[in-house]
Amino acid sequence: MYLLRRGDPTMFETFWRGPIGESATLVIPGYQTMSYFSDVGNLCWFLEPGFEREVRRLHSLVGNAAVEGYHVLVGTGSSQLFQAALYALALPTANAPVSVVSTTPFYSMYPPLTDFLNSGLYRWAGDANAFDGDDYIEVICSPNNPDGSIREAVLKSKSGKDIHDLAYYWPQYTPITHMLAHDIMLFTVSKCTGHAGTRIGWALVKDKEVAQKMSKFMEQSTIGVSKDAQLRAAKVLGAVTDGYEHQLAAAAGGDANLLFHYARRKMAHRWCALRAAVAASGIFSLPNEVAGFCTFTKDTVTSNPAFAWLRCEKQEVEDLESFLRENKIITRSGTKFGADQKVVRISMVDTDEAFGIFVNRLATIK
Amino acid sequence: MYLLRRGDPTMFETFWRGPIGESATLVIPGYQTMSYFSDVGNLCWFLEPGFEREVRRLHSLVGNAAVEGYHVLVGTGSSQLFQAALYALALPTANAPVSVVSTTPFYSMYPPLTDFLNSGLYRWAGDANAFDGDDYIEVICSPNNPDGSIREAVLKSKSGKDIHDLAYYWPQYTPITHMLAHDIMLFTVSKCTGHAGTRIGWALVKDKEVAQKMSKFMEQSTIGVSKDAQLRAAKVLGAVTDGYEHQLAAAAGGDANLLFHYARRKMAHRWCALRAAVAASGIFSLPNEVAGFCTFTKDTVTSNPAFAWLRCEKQEVEDLESFLRENKIITRSGTKFGADQKVVRISMVDTDEAFGIFVNRLATIK
Repeated sequence: MYLLRRGDPTMFETFWRGPIGESATLVIPGYQTMSYFSDVGNLCWFLEPGFEREVRRLHSLVGNAAVEGYHVLVGTGSSQLFQAALYALALPTANAPVSVVSTTPFYSMYPPLTDFLNSGLYRWAGDANAFDGDDYIEVICSPNNPDGSIREAVLKSKSGKDIHDLAYYWPQYTPITHMLAHDIMLFTVSKCTGHAGTRIGWALVKDKEVAQKMSKFMEQSTIGVSKDAQLRAAKVLGAVTDGYEHQLAAAAGGDANLLFHYARRKMAHRWCALRAAVAASGIFSLPNEVAGFCTFTKDTVTSNPAFAWLRCEKQEVEDLESFLRENKIITRSGTKFGADQKVVRISMVDTDEAFGIFVNRLATIK
Repeated sequence: MYLLRRGDPTMFETFWRGPIGESATLVIPGYQTMSYFSDVGNLCWFLEPGFEREVRRLHSLVGNAAVEGYHVLVGTGSSQLFQAALYALALPTANAPVSVVSTTPFYSMYPPLTDFLNSGLYRWAGDANAFDGDDYIEVICSPNNPDGSIREAVLKSKSGKDIHDLAYYWPQYTPITHMLAHDIMLFTVSKCTGHAGTRIGWALVKDKEVAQKMSKFMEQSTIGVSKDAQLRAAKVLGAVTDGYEHQLAAAAGGDANLLFHYARRKMAHRWCALRAAVAASGIFSLPNEVAGFCTFTKDTVTSNPAFAWLRCEKQEVEDLESFLRENKIITRSGTKFGADQKVVRISMVDTDEAFGIFVNRLATIK
């Protein structure tokens, strides 16, 4: 069985086994990271200053999001930050829970993340395009999980609020076309460098009061965020930025030290292979390729989404997830994303071996 | 200002700077811990096998809790596991949220942890002794935070459920008198070894279905628990057990490698100093000393709670927290624990320096 249900970004492991890996090695002596506190003077008192520094350095390098004037918050993955944002934006005084919406197809985890505790503060309300009202929280995932599309908010109301989930707004997945500066922007080490197991995400938040409430959420939920995990993430992000700075200094060739260049080349290669397999099979279709000028790499490139949103054009196949499972390919059905059964989401960031088996298998399905 | 509001267990740092510290050093290469998954075959798929092994080893050494036949779950601190247990024990089909109770004085975080998301599944309902009904979740903290008392469930009903918070059931705080074998038992590295910043707790759970639901909570809340933090915790717990095993092998003297012996001696010393300061001042009182035979150290010892539950006997002082703040001692008022204003909770596990200043200051208050 080839499991592509989750976007486990293990494909970047090869990069971290390369020359840059050594500089990312973390050593923690037995007596370190013992206190709950990282920085008592900070609004986010459990934020490791070294992690914040590397977050700001990396965004300054890539130019994908503004950091000047923003508060940096750390979370146990961006899923905790997503819930923290819901908590911060909901009004505890309101009579009814605030509606949380996102344009279909939306990330399959948004509904359960919103509803699993049956909170009186917020409630999942489905497709943003079908929503009618002034009070809402709209989640904008861009590039979008599952279909890779570039998105903006579809609802406009003074009392409505937005959360921008930018987990995939990195050069390996999409051209960086703008330095975004939204009120709440969520990122995660998992999709940026591939370190999903470290469970570290961060938020860039403009408003101080919102940042305070989000920090309060992490305080209540888990009494802050593991320092060891933050130190690990700081090491890894630092190694990425260092890789570019040293490369520029040395003017050397190759991309063994350049995460985004390495990862983009790998992703582009995989998309090529997938498109070839889809053509060979003849019964599937993929979203159209999107291209743009990347301000980071200074060239025009196509996007290489972390997921393939694969549709089946064959009349008889009604439930594509089941059909692919019969062919030993495990995917996640479109129904989980607010879409139909004839489409599935497939991870493009698994290991080389798993990806190779998958495309070979897909190409032969008729 | 001497901040003793939180129980930040920094006093154990000295131990970890000693000879055993080196064996607890963690090294993580850049390419490790990348996947979300730790053990796909495990009910708790994000649990690092090495961490589980060290948890079982440590309990077998200390004899404070049964591990045979129990599922081990990992959480981002025991506060996440507490919420996971509420989630697992609440019935999503019930009309009203289930009442969560604990005997007064109860840990001040239980009410906000239960209520901060205004969940429809469970609701804080205060003192267990004042509760009337059959459906409830009773939280039993033993030794109890804030007052160090040894507790058992006070409610008895077939449909009621218990959560045992055993964060302080370690030899430095209390004699180990029984190998406990409750349905749900919560522990945390924070209070056991002093590594609060690592944010790792664990649960021993008897029932498979409850364990599955608790694991599901961690999956939804934070998509598992940081692997780096688990590896760190495994190193630290392993060093504790190794310290005892090597000591036994070498039959050497001293306690530099014996965490519980070292920590108990330090705690006993602090309690001596605190009792002397209370006597010198003359306006305070403390709970009576409790003693028992410890099956781990094989001797009769007094308990040394992680917190002092300090009462003021002076008529004019109505609000002890404010009174102590005027004397530059920051504590947490009894009102936060369901008790009155004439009592406060004081951390006994802060740094040597802070503790020294505190007792000197307390002794002079008249």
